[in-house]
Amino acid sequence: MSLVIIGSLAFDTIETPLDRRERIVGGSGTYCALAASFFTRPKVVGVVGKDFPKRTIELLRSHKIDIKGVSIRAGKTFHWEGRYGADPNQRTTVRTDLNVFADFKPELPPSYRSADILYLANIDPDLHGPVLAQVRKPKLVAMDTIRFWIENKPKAVFRELGRVDIYFANDEEVKLLAGDDNLVRAGKKLLECGPSLIVAKKGEHGALVFGTDFVFGIPARPCEDVVDPTGAGDSFAGGFLGYLDKVAKITPREVRRAAVYGSVVASFAIEDFGIDRFLTLTSGEIEARFREFKRLVFF
Amino acid sequence: MSLVIIGSLAFDTIETPLDRRERIVGGSGTYCALAASFFTRPKVVGVVGKDFPKRTIELLRSHKIDIKGVSIRAGKTFHWEGRYGADPNQRTTVRTDLNVFADFKPELPPSYRSADILYLANIDPDLHGPVLAQVRKPKLVAMDTIRFWIENKPKAVFRELGRVDIYFANDEEVKLLAGDDNLVRAGKKLLECGPSLIVAKKGEHGALVFGTDFVFGIPARPCEDVVDPTGAGDSFAGGFLGYLDKVAKITPREVRRAAVYGSVVASFAIEDFGIDRFLTLTSGEIEARFREFKRLVFF
Repeated sequence: MSLVIIGSLAFDTIETPLDRRERIVGGSGTYCALAASFFTRPKVVGVVGKDFPKRTIELLRSHKIDIKGVSIRAGKTFHWEGRYGADPNQRTTVRTDLNVFADFKPELPPSYRSADILYLANIDPDLHGPVLAQVRKPKLVAMDTIRFWIENKPKAVFRELGRVDIYFANDEEVKLLAGDDNLVRAGKKLLECGPSLIVAKKGEHGALVFGTDFVFGIPARPCEDVVDPTGAGDSFAGGFLGYLDKVAKITPREVRRAAVYGSVVASFAIEDFGIDRFLTLTSGEIEARFREFKRLVFF
Repeated sequence: MSLVIIGSLAFDTIETPLDRRERIVGGSGTYCALAASFFTRPKVVGVVGKDFPKRTIELLRSHKIDIKGVSIRAGKTFHWEGRYGADPNQRTTVRTDLNVFADFKPELPPSYRSADILYLANIDPDLHGPVLAQVRKPKLVAMDTIRFWIENKPKAVFRELGRVDIYFANDEEVKLLAGDDNLVRAGKKLLECGPSLIVAKKGEHGALVFGTDFVFGIPARPCEDVVDPTGAGDSFAGGFLGYLDKVAKITPREVRRAAVYGSVVASFAIEDFGIDRFLTLTSGEIEARFREFKRLVFF
């Protein structure tokens, strides 16, 4: 199969209670593609400025990520600055400079157009249509969204729910979008809007996957030192979709395993700043932690 | 084996966003004993006033709960009033009238003194010593505590941790007591204070059980309608300890199953106000939900 990811490649400035990093490489597309690269050979669509490091482009290539869909434009790369509290789930956006991302019009190279799995990582929901018009007949379309689009373009988000198979979101976003304080009711309401799967990510509390005829719950791997939570959600989606692309079967059993692989990859992402942990991560470590998850929940 | 529970029998006035109930029967000992009664024949120690309904005493008896340790004193029964927000984890105490519970000096009838499992439900930690002096050689001693004791008698709570095997607490209480924002680090710190198990209850997010050489994580059963969260934690402990008392084996495998039974029983407790759901609950329903938990986490 093949997986195409449409998302951001960015610089992040991150402050945690213990440390600070200026303009390190981040972005939903970057995290998602790197996470997926441990399972398959993802293709990425995104835009960066002339200031984006060549060595990062090389790094993505060395992870067998197809970057033909990444265009380099005159101008600066998207820059996000955020701050985390003692509770890593508490995040404050200090600053967002969209820069070249402001005019992002995703263009899929011809070799991307037969994608089996398409992932629309929290981009403007009004960009979904033009992207979908460029792909032939994907088996699976997934989207994520962020509070910004839910608050500013709720109608567009609901419209897009009607044409995706999987909706990934934080538990807070699921509740906000559904207008319901109860996550289970909210997840079921969104299922009725179109997707066959709602994947509610709950950070340190794990994830709940709502299907039309099953619910799957998974705790997060107990973690003593969250160094940098940035990109955990995008890494989750990358591991999830990368695994499905690899096994090429979208059954309830494989969806459950995909969610565990998503959690596993996310549990590595938060162990270091930015994408650093992915630079040394091995498939062996991923498999070992998958087995650890089995022991974590076994009874 | 035999299980002795020392806790409160009380009246609760409960307000939720949808409803209100005045002076219904509650109390940590009541919830815990009823929950445990689906697995074993628990013995309860507590105190009530003359106003406590005789039919509740009869009800406990009809559930094969030994109430020889419940004394009826002149005066009024402990009364707690609380209010829940839209998020059932948000609880505000409106009023606490200790009444006869203020002078509670637990006295164990002779037939209770050979208890195998002893549960000290969030009573004053300074009462633990006198209780322990009355039992011969329990195989397992467990305690719960509440924010009030952690804030007002932290030294006593730590001292008591040194002589129990299991510490049950909410995740917030585990973090508060350990002085650590990270639940995993906090749980491990408390393990070093004496108990061989720390059971951190996380409400709608499930529970984490920390042992000296394992961690067990379980999501909560997805619930669309939390009618009244009161007593969920006490019911969890009751199901947990009642199951261990029944199987009479305290192995890591049985501890994991005990935590699931605790979650199962708690998931019923919140389906109606006060203890009402326990009045119709059957062992068959408990077993069915235990199997449902297997499907919930299976991958």
